Parts: sequence; C-alpha cells; structure tokens
Amino acid sequence: MQELFISSRKNETLKAAAKLLTSSEVRREQGAYLAEGARLCRDAARSGVSIKTLFYTESAGKKYPEYLGELRETAETVYRLADHAGELLSGTKSTQGIFCVCAVKKRKTEEIPRNHCLALENIQDPGNLGTVLRTAEALGLGSVLLCGECCDLYAPKVLRASMGAVFRLPVFFFPALSDAAALLSARGFQSFAAVPDNGAIPVTKAEFSHPTLMAVGNEGNGLSREAIEACREKITIPMLGRAESLNAAASASILMWEMMRGGMPDGMA
Amino acid sequence: MQELFISSRKNETLKAAAKLLTSSEVRREQGAYLAEGARLCRDAARSGVSIKTLFYTESAGKKYPEYLGELRETAETVYRLADHAGELLSGTKSTQGIFCVCAVKKRKTEEIPRNHCLALENIQDPGNLGTVLRTAEALGLGSVLLCGECCDLYAPKVLRASMGAVFRLPVFFFPALSDAAALLSARGFQSFAAVPDNGAIPVTKAEFSHPTLMAVGNEGNGLSREAIEACREKITIPMLGRAESLNAAASASILMWEMMRGGMPDGMA
Repeated sequence: MQELFISSRKNETLKAAAKLLTSSEVRREQGAYLAEGARLCRDAARSGVSIKTLFYTESAGKKYPEYLGELRETAETVYRLADHAGELLSGTKSTQGIFCVCAVKKRKTEEIPRNHCLALENIQDPGNLGTVLRTAEALGLGSVLLCGECCDLYAPKVLRASMGAVFRLPVFFFPALSDAAALLSARGFQSFAAVPDNGAIPVTKAEFSHPTLMAVGNEGNGLSREAIEACREKITIPMLGRAESLNAAASASILMWEMMRGGMPDGMA
Repeated sequence: MQELFISSRKNETLKAAAKLLTSSEVRREQGAYLAEGARLCRDAARSGVSIKTLFYTESAGKKYPEYLGELRETAETVYRLADHAGELLSGTKSTQGIFCVCAVKKRKTEEIPRNHCLALENIQDPGNLGTVLRTAEALGLGSVLLCGECCDLYAPKVLRASMGAVFRLPVFFFPALSDAAALLSARGFQSFAAVPDNGAIPVTKAEFSHPTLMAVGNEGNGLSREAIEACREKITIPMLGRAESLNAAASASILMWEMMRGGMPDGMA
C-alpha cells in the first residue's frame, strides 16, 4: 500500500482528523472517531473495528514496527507524519504517535442480546463511563445502554479508560431510559432501578435468573423519577457504612457483579 | 481570633504551605498535609481532624461565609489571602480559595479494629487509592492497610477522590504486606490473597464470618509472590467475561462487597 507523508500541521487531512479528537459533533456527523496509542489501536483492529485511516509518526515507525505491521493490514489509508505534525492528533502529554480513524459501528436495538444489561442515565464523567464499560466486559454482561444525555462514548478519555471495551461490548443508545425499559419489558426482561432507598429490594435478595435491565443514574443526582417509574422494581445496595459515599462507578460495579455472580440468566450459553 | 493578611506570593508561611501540596517528603517530615476546597475542608473539621492553619482568599470570604465560620472555630491560625496569592496553594484549575493545613493522625497498629480490612500492596494511582478508600468507607470496612510502596495517602488527588474518607477511615501503614498478614494472623484474622487464578477459592464460596484481611495488589502486576505466600488462602473473582479487563479498583470494590454482603463478622456490632 502506498503511504503518503504529511510534514505540515496545516495539512487538511490532518486537520480534519484532529477535529475528531476534540469535537463530539464532528464525530457524530462523520460517524467516526479517533483512537490513540499502539495498544488501543491494535485492540480496535483485533476487535473487528473498521479502520479508515492509520496515522503514525516517524518516531513511532521506529519504535512500534510490530503494531504498525498489524495495523497496516486493516487500515484503508495510511499516512506517515512528521513528529511535530503528530502532536496535533494527540490528547495526551506524551504521545506514542499512533492514531486510527475508526468507523462507528451502527447497532440496531433489535440486536440487544437476551442477557443482562446495564442502562446508564445521564452519566457525565468520561472516566466513569470508560471504567464501567471495562467492568461490564470483564464480568460478561451482554450490553450497555446509554440513555438520555450521557457523555460521548467515543471521547478520547472514554476510549482510554475502557481499555478497548468500547470496541467489543455492544452499546446501544436511547433518548430516554423509559424507552429502553419499555422495549426490553416487551421482550420479557425484568427491570430494576437502582436507588438509595431502604424500602427498595436489597440486591442480595433479588433473583437474576431472567434477562435483566439494571438502571443506574447520574453521578450527582441518581436516576430521574421518570426512569425509576419506568422500571418494574426498585433495588438498593445494603450498606453497613457511610452509604452516601458510594460513587456511581462503584455502585454500578457491585450491581453488575450481583447480576452475574450466580451465572448467566436462563436461556443463555 | 486575629486574622493575618497575606498579600504576596513570596510570603514564607504561604510558601511553606505550598510545599505540602507538591511534596510527599515535606508532608512526611512535617506530619501535615494540605486539604483544598470548601466541602473537603469542612469534612476534615467535622471528622475531628486537627486543623493547624486555615487559609482563605478574599473571594472565598465573600462566597463561603458559612463554611468559613465553621472552619474558623477549629483552626489554630487563620490567614486571609489576596486572590492571586491563594493560587499558590491550589492543585486545581478553578480553586474555591479555601485551604487547610491538617495534622496527620498517627495510628498504632494495635488500634486495627477486629473487623474486615483491605490490604493494598504497591498501589500507584492516587485516583484509584482515593476511590477504593471511598468505597471501603461506604461498605463499612474496619480499616485499610497500605503496604509496600503505595502512593502517598495525603496527595491532593487521593484526598479529592476519597471524598473525605481519608479523614474518617482508619488507615495503617506496613513496610510489607507480609508484616500485616503476620500481625493479623496472630490476632486471629483469616487472610486471603486476591489472584487471577482459576485454582483459587472463588470469592462466592469463601466464608467471611471471621475478621478477614483481603490483600489486593498493584494495578499492573497484582500481588507480589511474597505477599501471596504470606496469606493463608488464595481467592479469585470468578468471571464470565474478559477477566483481564477488571482493574484494581473494580476488583477491590467487588472483594470488599463480598466480605461485607453477609453482614459484619462475628463479634462485631
């Protein structure tokens, strides 16, 4: 494959790619996002993500020949960059100089697997979202649903914190959590709204033998009233300590763990 | 109480306090650390932390009169700062302009409560440490033990991420995890080393009716061999998904949750 060389930070192709780094609007318009780093880009390639463009700096060319060999095989177009031009694409202080423009994988809600799923409402912090996705993948959840006004799934911080889970875990979008709950209830899912309320079902007493939607709210405010009402049951994490201290990511970890600790729901492999 | 005014960034008292922000060595030498922010400083005061000095900027004086009223009652010395001088004490981009020099609370290992504890070995990331402390407090663990080369408990990022748990949760220090395991074994604690090993006891099968030391390792490398050997049993989190994806903070959350989900150990309130 022919590799083009970019020496100037004013190059139009480079400037267009840099916009994918900073603007969620541009990402949405183009249906693409930018992954950075040797390991993360290779993860994307190995996870079957469609890589439109590979950019790598001259330094990276010397330092990461194996990673680049693998990436060249899947990328549609390849650009070699002068080191100073590469900085334009980087969201980190010390860049490895490897960047991939990845195509967003479109998923239809019909594809939501009949397995436990976590529905997040209005989650704001990219680090939290990335960590939750990473944990969801580790524990073997079927999918994650992003509902309402969540931070952008393809923001650089989410990609990094997820350690590549963004590429592999099926993620679906809903304008409101109530839409997700209605759709999955109709398909036989049970649904729980996580609330800090001693009157709710303790998660240790709940049954997860059926496919389950577990709804978790925003970092500061928890779930909206509308979301809570859309779920069949309320659920809570019984705590012996200072309950208000549990943050959204830790709550989500424990709830996902409780869903999965007894094994997969009935009818799953 | 008389309040002194500092207008210059070259003031020696101010410069000495600023060193507590950046240097863990200075914190250790002086047995003191710097807390920043209206809420965090008030948390320190309400948690019984000894506050040697309160600094607040003129802007903060107008914006946070209630917080400052409470802090003035406990602080030994109070300084009002010109706004530009306050920036010297801040570790954040947009400071609230309230800072407290807090005395490190010395704890003896004899004070370790007879309740479940988490022992961390060589944990490096301040954000992770803070989050783990916050979760430990929420779930009601008795203590956290920092073993080996952990990041500084009093680093600004740890304080922030812990949401004040640093002030309340008993934390103890050990040169090596094996020292902690030996001491607590002699006091009748059971001990588990968390490992990613299918041959270990699944955490869902373990009994936590006795006071337990749960050892969790470093983000990248897990527990040292020496630490694993010092614990009586090996324990693991059985996972259906991509197990290598679970990070140290999420693993610790799930292990702490499993210790606490059946209630306090025997002999505890």
